[in-house]
Amino acid sequence: MEKLLTNINVPEDLRKLKVEQLEQLSAELRDFIIDKCSENPGHFGASLGTIELTVAIHYVFKTPYDKLIWDVGHQAYAHKILTGRKNTFDTNRKYNGLSGFPKMKESEYDAFGVGHASTSISAGLGMAVAARLNGEDRKVISVIGDGSFSGGMAFEGLNNAGWQNADMLVILNDNNIAIDPNVGALKKYFTNITLSGKYNKWKRSIWNRLGESKFRWALKRMGNTVKSAIFSEGNLFESLGFRYFGPIDGHDINMLVKTLSRLKTIKGAKILHVVTKKGKGYKPAEENQTEWHAPGTFDKNTGKKLNAHVVDPSKPAKYQDVFGETIVELARMNPKILGITPAMATGCSLNIMMHNYPDRVFDVGIAEAHAVTFSAGLAAAGYMPFCNIYSSFMQRAFDSVIHDVALQNLNVVFCLDRGGIVGEDGPTHHGVFDLAYFRLIPNITVSAPMNEVELRNMMYTAQLPSAGPFSIRYPRGNGFTPNWRVPFEKIPLGRGRILKEGSDIAILSIGHPGNFAAIAVEKAEEHGISVMHCDMRFVKPIDKDILHSVGKKFKHVITVEDGTVAGGMGSAVAEFFARHGYDCCVEMLGVPDQFIQQGTVQELQAKCGFDAKGIYNTVLRLMQDV
Amino acid sequence: MEKLLTNINVPEDLRKLKVEQLEQLSAELRDFIIDKCSENPGHFGASLGTIELTVAIHYVFKTPYDKLIWDVGHQAYAHKILTGRKNTFDTNRKYNGLSGFPKMKESEYDAFGVGHASTSISAGLGMAVAARLNGEDRKVISVIGDGSFSGGMAFEGLNNAGWQNADMLVILNDNNIAIDPNVGALKKYFTNITLSGKYNKWKRSIWNRLGESKFRWALKRMGNTVKSAIFSEGNLFESLGFRYFGPIDGHDINMLVKTLSRLKTIKGAKILHVVTKKGKGYKPAEENQTEWHAPGTFDKNTGKKLNAHVVDPSKPAKYQDVFGETIVELARMNPKILGITPAMATGCSLNIMMHNYPDRVFDVGIAEAHAVTFSAGLAAAGYMPFCNIYSSFMQRAFDSVIHDVALQNLNVVFCLDRGGIVGEDGPTHHGVFDLAYFRLIPNITVSAPMNEVELRNMMYTAQLPSAGPFSIRYPRGNGFTPNWRVPFEKIPLGRGRILKEGSDIAILSIGHPGNFAAIAVEKAEEHGISVMHCDMRFVKPIDKDILHSVGKKFKHVITVEDGTVAGGMGSAVAEFFARHGYDCCVEMLGVPDQFIQQGTVQELQAKCGFDAKGIYNTVLRLMQDV
Repeated sequence: MEKLLTNINVPEDLRKLKVEQLEQLSAELRDFIIDKCSENPGHFGASLGTIELTVAIHYVFKTPYDKLIWDVGHQAYAHKILTGRKNTFDTNRKYNGLSGFPKMKESEYDAFGVGHASTSISAGLGMAVAARLNGEDRKVISVIGDGSFSGGMAFEGLNNAGWQNADMLVILNDNNIAIDPNVGALKKYFTNITLSGKYNKWKRSIWNRLGESKFRWALKRMGNTVKSAIFSEGNLFESLGFRYFGPIDGHDINMLVKTLSRLKTIKGAKILHVVTKKGKGYKPAEENQTEWHAPGTFDKNTGKKLNAHVVDPSKPAKYQDVFGETIVELARMNPKILGITPAMATGCSLNIMMHNYPDRVFDVGIAEAHAVTFSAGLAAAGYMPFCNIYSSFMQRAFDSVIHDVALQNLNVVFCLDRGGIVGEDGPTHHGVFDLAYFRLIPNITVSAPMNEVELRNMMYTAQLPSAGPFSIRYPRGNGFTPNWRVPFEKIPLGRGRILKEGSDIAILSIGHPGNFAAIAVEKAEEHGISVMHCDMRFVKPIDKDILHSVGKKFKHVITVEDGTVAGGMGSAVAEFFARHGYDCCVEMLGVPDQFIQQGTVQELQAKCGFDAKGIYNTVLRLMQDV
Repeated sequence: MEKLLTNINVPEDLRKLKVEQLEQLSAELRDFIIDKCSENPGHFGASLGTIELTVAIHYVFKTPYDKLIWDVGHQAYAHKILTGRKNTFDTNRKYNGLSGFPKMKESEYDAFGVGHASTSISAGLGMAVAARLNGEDRKVISVIGDGSFSGGMAFEGLNNAGWQNADMLVILNDNNIAIDPNVGALKKYFTNITLSGKYNKWKRSIWNRLGESKFRWALKRMGNTVKSAIFSEGNLFESLGFRYFGPIDGHDINMLVKTLSRLKTIKGAKILHVVTKKGKGYKPAEENQTEWHAPGTFDKNTGKKLNAHVVDPSKPAKYQDVFGETIVELARMNPKILGITPAMATGCSLNIMMHNYPDRVFDVGIAEAHAVTFSAGLAAAGYMPFCNIYSSFMQRAFDSVIHDVALQNLNVVFCLDRGGIVGEDGPTHHGVFDLAYFRLIPNITVSAPMNEVELRNMMYTAQLPSAGPFSIRYPRGNGFTPNWRVPFEKIPLGRGRILKEGSDIAILSIGHPGNFAAIAVEKAEEHGISVMHCDMRFVKPIDKDILHSVGKKFKHVITVEDGTVAGGMGSAVAEFFARHGYDCCVEMLGVPDQFIQQGTVQELQAKCGFDAKGIYNTVLRLMQDV
């Protein structure tokens, strides 16, 4: 039998199918995604869970005229495949390929670019208001997971949309999991609704028994009453001015199409609660949802992962594991240490401490600002929270860092995981701004260890008494030092490490790229160029002694950082030299002042010019001027 | 009759009173606050509304052992007066005086420093969790206004606290107004509860008729049931794992004391809904709550304001009014222009446009991140939103600016009001970081006009086609140019203005302090020092031609900005010089790398050294080295 998917390139094609064919199409899409993702890794589980929902939305609504916004966008693979990108899906998340997330520039069907959680209701409200101002009968659909609902902006959006009674449909994609299992009171609330007998009663009685015409009549009648929600449990959303519908089975394509068709005719702010299963249709993914969120490549027949993370003690560890194991050691020594994460326990390896000290680790759900201010409250009460947040997500807690932690000089240790270029996740996820935006905050120590041992010692140093607000950033992935389990040593605050003396050029590096610099320095030395190399360790306070001696001695200085050059470590060096009148020419290597697309970490670092080769080439270029 | 307040210095003293005396004490506190605030201006209305609540809390709870956290802190004057600061209350908001907000360093009774909205639940949760970990029976009370509830972090805190069933009491201080009247679906929801017959029924029947012993019994019984809230309307909070109590009259001191005493004995997460009136007990303030939020000095007998803002066309206007009138002019010309504000319509003067174009202005409530992402949605749909947010509050939308606007290169115009030192509101409200944290974001134009005409023209320029993300920051208060109503002129992007040529020293200023620089330059000139002065206008893109010519010509450069020197405009200049190897010594004037306390704007600018005198002195000092 010829595949339906073969002839579907855009939603227009999809809309020519009969409803009865949509189940088959969904099955084909599922096979397609399993097939492609087994070879080219991506966000697998979430997209399997939304196949029927995607098909139903594009079938019922007139995309791209109607605006469809996916929250986060992990779940949008079926959407990409159905909207003109089936044949390029092989390039997903690759350099110059498709973005792993919806992206306005990539397709007119991507109504809004996403990546971070909880933005879809606010953005959708903007489009709904625009349609109202234009007098257009344009529909707006925001699809948001229950995990993303815990982010404050989702609530801000609901509160404002309900107040305006905006003509928009919010679809709550309730699968009880974000990357780690979802937490929070809301999760419980959603589960209670779903588990209640009324859910099944809805499915069986109202829909199947009443039949379509009576159902239509019932909906219409309800539409005219104040109490318009189908079930009284919907009150939370009603409180916020939304009409609540559901929950319905998000894998029942017929149910989805019928429900969405009805909702399309109802004006105003409404929410449809859809229950789905992450990893649906692929057994290993259904059974271990966290692991199969983004599993890497796998054998699609056996479910065996081909690049599974195996800890080999003779090889360098992941920075994440160094963090995860070190905090357990420190927690053993210091009973005041707590671990805080906004929904990233597995990704940042705080799950190790969770296992050892379950009462001392708090996964607060997707809620970065809360994570920081909650940490501030704990610190005000005498505890020493290690608040681990990915660098790009820390942007969401910027004010909390300033207003609640730094201003009050509280002992909160920020561990910024995924600092720097992150690779395939692309511009929404690169953690390239943190050194710059932390540097401008008074009272805070801003550090980036160059390797695993330094990370360990920096964590040790940060928890010593009166260290004040302290930030430690490190990248995703492996370090350089196999034997990192060494006794703790205190790092003197604001002191860099001179790794090598030299006379022609000075390189000042911060964090992991110091390893690239070391390679470049060695190579330069082989060619007779004498390079001084210092691992600055701290962006703030910056090591003034080193800067004075470098300023006095060198005409050419190269700064190296895995972050934006605008305002970053190089900028701090330039400030210092300019203030003190040192006549150095500073070449700032790092992330240029532009958004960096996706690709492998190596590709992107090379493009930015701060990999070993880029640093070496810069040394050569500057030497022509020495 | 001797005043009760005379003998009350700390809450211990208060607790010795009989309940019957608390009404009198409240009246005395009210007189005290009216008296003091009429002479020394402050946040008047909010504090009048919470007098009885403050007295009741300190009477019932064992502060400072029990932790009391005020959200925002506008409403905490009675708290300050009752907790050791009665005799220093004259210094409220003054340089070296009391902070206008609760502040940990100021008093052990200020459990957490505040200023920005919606932080109190998260911080309180931290303290409640700490108490649990310590095995202490310490109570935690967070008092939060209905306006602050619209901020996403309040929801994040509730969701997490409810999930943990933390032992804390959240008091919803519902007065239906923040600074401007509160908006949002929640506001409607709270009002519905309050207006419902059940509210009065509660007051009359349950309390007065049942009497205390039966009430206690009823509460206890309810405590053991799943449906523990007193009224079913409390479901929103119940959904989030809180037990809901109220609403009760927040000016009935007996009711407050009795209710709080009962709630003190109930474990777990609970919310008490208290209805208060902003400005309570002072008629003019009750009748015009927005105007009396922070009225300045006034005649307490007549209610006549002594420093009322009168527009005199022959004098320089407030930047706010220039913004407010200009956006109306632009909106007339460009139908795509919309105005967005998170609860600051009066403060930023967007209320002028609201009056002229009610359908084109959106007050979204206290919800900064939403305001920005909502603007992004509008821009994605072809509109041109002017999103006006105070600089220090924009910190809360940092990720939305990066992720939703800049990355997608959308035409959103950010108007950052209160840019720079704001004066008496102090460190939580100084808008001193924005030039630095906007500068590191790709794609965005970062500007700060030097005067009213420049502000007008910058706004005009920002709304021209394809300007992309555009930020315009300006300070609180008056400018320098009486005749600012001139025809619009486009400002060339990234071009500064050379205001004066010179040969000894160059001053590069950005924004309003350019006026201080101009005074200093004139004075220097009188003393035979030739100073070149350039108003840079843009921090990004920075004017490279000017920097090249300055770099070539001058040995000494002074940069002047009303913002942090770390990472700010001076830093951008230093980066440029260092990159190009210019041998300039750059003296960066601005806000040093520390949190600046409260005081008058003039005092603080002088302290930072970028007022006219500070700039002039810097010129003199550098001249010794020329």
